[in-house]
Amino acid sequence: MTKNKKVNAAILIIGNEILSGRTQDTNTSTIASWLNSIGVIVQEVRVIPDIEETIIETVNVLKKLHDYVFTTGGIGPTHDDITAQSISKAFSLEYEIHKEAFKILETYYKPGEFNEGRQKMVWMPKNANLILNPTSGAPGFSVENVFCLPGVPSILKSMLGGLKNKIVGGEPILSHTISLRTLESEIAKSLTNVQDNNKDVEIGSYPFFQAGKLGVSIVIRSEDQSKIDKCGSKILEFVKEKKIEVVDR
Amino acid sequence: MTKNKKVNAAILIIGNEILSGRTQDTNTSTIASWLNSIGVIVQEVRVIPDIEETIIETVNVLKKLHDYVFTTGGIGPTHDDITAQSISKAFSLEYEIHKEAFKILETYYKPGEFNEGRQKMVWMPKNANLILNPTSGAPGFSVENVFCLPGVPSILKSMLGGLKNKIVGGEPILSHTISLRTLESEIAKSLTNVQDNNKDVEIGSYPFFQAGKLGVSIVIRSEDQSKIDKCGSKILEFVKEKKIEVVDR
Repeated sequence: MTKNKKVNAAILIIGNEILSGRTQDTNTSTIASWLNSIGVIVQEVRVIPDIEETIIETVNVLKKLHDYVFTTGGIGPTHDDITAQSISKAFSLEYEIHKEAFKILETYYKPGEFNEGRQKMVWMPKNANLILNPTSGAPGFSVENVFCLPGVPSILKSMLGGLKNKIVGGEPILSHTISLRTLESEIAKSLTNVQDNNKDVEIGSYPFFQAGKLGVSIVIRSEDQSKIDKCGSKILEFVKEKKIEVVDR
Repeated sequence: MTKNKKVNAAILIIGNEILSGRTQDTNTSTIASWLNSIGVIVQEVRVIPDIEETIIETVNVLKKLHDYVFTTGGIGPTHDDITAQSISKAFSLEYEIHKEAFKILETYYKPGEFNEGRQKMVWMPKNANLILNPTSGAPGFSVENVFCLPGVPSILKSMLGGLKNKIVGGEPILSHTISLRTLESEIAKSLTNVQDNNKDVEIGSYPFFQAGKLGVSIVIRSEDQSKIDKCGSKILEFVKEKKIEVVDR
């Protein structure tokens, strides 16, 4: 059993460009990997369009279902950036100029460069907490358990470090991967046995193609290293019996 | 106004490996781009774990909200592949051996190779319609408006062609991209004007970094090419006025 309560989160990707297939989302894996490392389990991801009503509705659902919600996208200077005003409405808060954010950007830009477009980026829900942006100045923000980050992957990445003290995670989720030169169907039955005897460990099986060869990666996940080790040994036992080549472990 | 009713879809990505951040989902953009080309608008994407109850619940919500639902993942031979049985339960259908699928795989594999693990892949909801798989044999399936595809991107891609006649789309959604050497804040106000005067056209603004330089791509989307052209001209007007370099159009 885990020592701590499990802490969970949802990721909400806001942006027509993902839904149209034009842009490949990479923020999900960035945020999810980081959350895993601090013991927060991502339970669901949703991608929704830049429609105010949809954003409000979805945020209101997710913030109740999960300990944390992370949104990406829609906090830039253009007309299609409507996350801040939508979050204000979701929490019934005034949408107004955030004084601290204003000061940050006033200092960030050269005199005369802090124009109307850029000033849009300091409009936020009243009393929002800022998430500092070491890359391009304009901060993200949080309201209660909802954390709003930008959509540009490199900027988002640079802001996660600043969130560390604001997110309280559980036990970090550990994982171990064993990669085999085999096919899923060859190991399915044996792997099921290991899973059935270790129900509180998550065992995933993922086929891969690498350098023209087929293989399967088995990923074992748990908060408890000894449980991972136990499953790993059991897997390596049947792998040896079946004379399957271990590519990596 | 569009001639046809708008046709919409949801994509449901099933898999712990996406939620843990281990695997970068690419199926969303593959499916979404293809759907766009046949006039189907993706309204939402959800990523959920390999948990039967969650799959059943989510499928039951999405199939009512959207014209089509496309699931990916969970139809392989291992213990964590539970999509087919979950879909059976979502539709209250028997989960049983699909005779046609059985014949396909019996022929596909060499004698003696159609083992227990592989036979799991022919268990499906009763009377499911098959989606043929030209890459690796094992078919996907559909029940009513829910289409179940595998998670391996190359296999999924190869199966979309076979779906063409099963999906009835609306007018294809056309798009035009104008890429500029500028910053979003420089064009935000002018772009808002164009959007406000053309409310039934979707105009998106996306910053990019390319070869060490900053730029903005403006994406104009509509079913009506003349509306796209009109917005494009209006955008190029203010771009010329502001002496902004056009990188690509």
